[in-house]
Amino acid sequence: VPSEFELIARHFTRGTTHTALGVGDDGALIAPTPGCELVISTDMLVEGTHFLPDTNPEDLGWKTLAVNVSDMAAMGAKPRWATLAMALPGADEAWIAAFARGVFACADEFGIDLIGGDTTRGPRNFCVTIFGEVVAGKALRRDGARVGDEIWVSGQPGRAALGLANLQGRTALSEPLLSDCVAALQRPQPRVTLGLALQGLATAAIDVSDGLLADLGHILEASAVSAQLKIAVPPAPTLERDAWLSGGDDYELVFTVPLAKHADIVALSQTLGLALTCIGRIEAGPAGRMDVFDADGTPIDVPRRGYDHFANGSAPPSN
Amino acid sequence: VPSEFELIARHFTRGTTHTALGVGDDGALIAPTPGCELVISTDMLVEGTHFLPDTNPEDLGWKTLAVNVSDMAAMGAKPRWATLAMALPGADEAWIAAFARGVFACADEFGIDLIGGDTTRGPRNFCVTIFGEVVAGKALRRDGARVGDEIWVSGQPGRAALGLANLQGRTALSEPLLSDCVAALQRPQPRVTLGLALQGLATAAIDVSDGLLADLGHILEASAVSAQLKIAVPPAPTLERDAWLSGGDDYELVFTVPLAKHADIVALSQTLGLALTCIGRIEAGPAGRMDVFDADGTPIDVPRRGYDHFANGSAPPSN
Repeated sequence: VPSEFELIARHFTRGTTHTALGVGDDGALIAPTPGCELVISTDMLVEGTHFLPDTNPEDLGWKTLAVNVSDMAAMGAKPRWATLAMALPGADEAWIAAFARGVFACADEFGIDLIGGDTTRGPRNFCVTIFGEVVAGKALRRDGARVGDEIWVSGQPGRAALGLANLQGRTALSEPLLSDCVAALQRPQPRVTLGLALQGLATAAIDVSDGLLADLGHILEASAVSAQLKIAVPPAPTLERDAWLSGGDDYELVFTVPLAKHADIVALSQTLGLALTCIGRIEAGPAGRMDVFDADGTPIDVPRRGYDHFANGSAPPSN
Repeated sequence: VPSEFELIARHFTRGTTHTALGVGDDGALIAPTPGCELVISTDMLVEGTHFLPDTNPEDLGWKTLAVNVSDMAAMGAKPRWATLAMALPGADEAWIAAFARGVFACADEFGIDLIGGDTTRGPRNFCVTIFGEVVAGKALRRDGARVGDEIWVSGQPGRAALGLANLQGRTALSEPLLSDCVAALQRPQPRVTLGLALQGLATAAIDVSDGLLADLGHILEASAVSAQLKIAVPPAPTLERDAWLSGGDDYELVFTVPLAKHADIVALSQTLGLALTCIGRIEAGPAGRMDVFDADGTPIDVPRRGYDHFANGSAPPSN
């Protein structure tokens, strides 16, 4: 049986491109770019809570890093370095090799050096900590939304939730929607380029990990404002509508922009080839309040606002 | 039942002293000190592998952060920030409150801002990532040991292993040794002050997490040298001798120093009020080779070199 150290060396030790000292000492050494702040985020993914035991390991490797990359996108930061700690039930080399391929595919896509880690035995669990850089003072925070700002969202949240529902037999999607939704679930594409482009345009931003309304709620609470939303969802409650409003795991960005910058966002959508949709406006009012209407102007009851890992009895559909 | 977010807010959200933006956004923001490199390390502690289910949660909180602080000490870095991700089987508030007290006791002791985290449901698992600072180019690495250097160790490794053996009924220590060994196991004291003082003196350093010989072996391999050791251990194999040579979990420092700096280390020991013992010398020879003798000059067979989480069938005694 190959040892822990052999497995790590074989599959997780690779060269770095912008790191003073990588894996293999008590700590890694990095030289931050002068004039930049470091943006740091950590996420833990647990088997049975965030992913199913039979998840394709290469997809899982991608997603484990991608959900952290998405936090950098939401801060308007360039992802630069990451660490990966993992607990595994045993040394299944084929599984580890596939998982590592997925991790490095994502790292390569976004220019990230993997600079450290830890491997131990235990119920399957992955913890990534990611480090991005942003020019000092330019990060996109949650607390900057102002009355009169427009609220925008990238892509279409809810695709990952629909993909999961299809895999679980709760709906039957047709192609090409099916492939699109399954890809959104298994290989989410963090909106890093969008986040970087929003520096100087957006007043606040967050990524959709818990659901559109839940995550927008975090902006409203941090900024102490309300919102009025008009969203082109089906008029009656359906799986599709619930997914749009409350489906997590998509990693689109929700952001607020001063009204005067409306045309800049329209132009940015063209430049990036990425749908950016205005879904409402920030208003004065109680922190966190949302009035939601469908395309016909019919009020929508705001559904459950995202998943809380302890207040509910059951596991969430996914991360 | 209080929600995940309420529990985190109640017990883990505290002010920071040197952080631009702490817990509560997609990422934390820190401003690295100009001219310094960042030193980064991550460790995962799993219930059943690194600690027992009935471990006192306050001690466990301390130790979860302390083992990471020790990595900073081993690099000669000043610990500055940390993130904590955790999986918990449920929302046991008393347990979480005690765990948080232990974490913050350690954070306060070493001047660390807790800047981010993640909480989720799952088998109990803690992952800390820690960030220290060191003047660029001054970090203590594993690969700098040179032929002729002396090998030193702080304190006396093996106390944590003896403490565990006593708790498990495999030995019966007398006071005050018993209290000393149990404290070494449950409340390890990372040698941060020593690590900082060794900048400019030591050529290589590592902390004793897997056992004295195992961890010294990492220095020898990284530096491509051999070592001759003379260690004042009992002549016959005993639990005490095994603990000295191979007991993990102590977080003392092993380091190499040019012969010409011998008097500086003796003086440093006085200044710090901390035992620093010369246990041997770096020699030319195959990378990693060790010849070990006891106080009488009798050769000692080098025992098993530390714990490998996958190559062995059973869990290690502790981290």
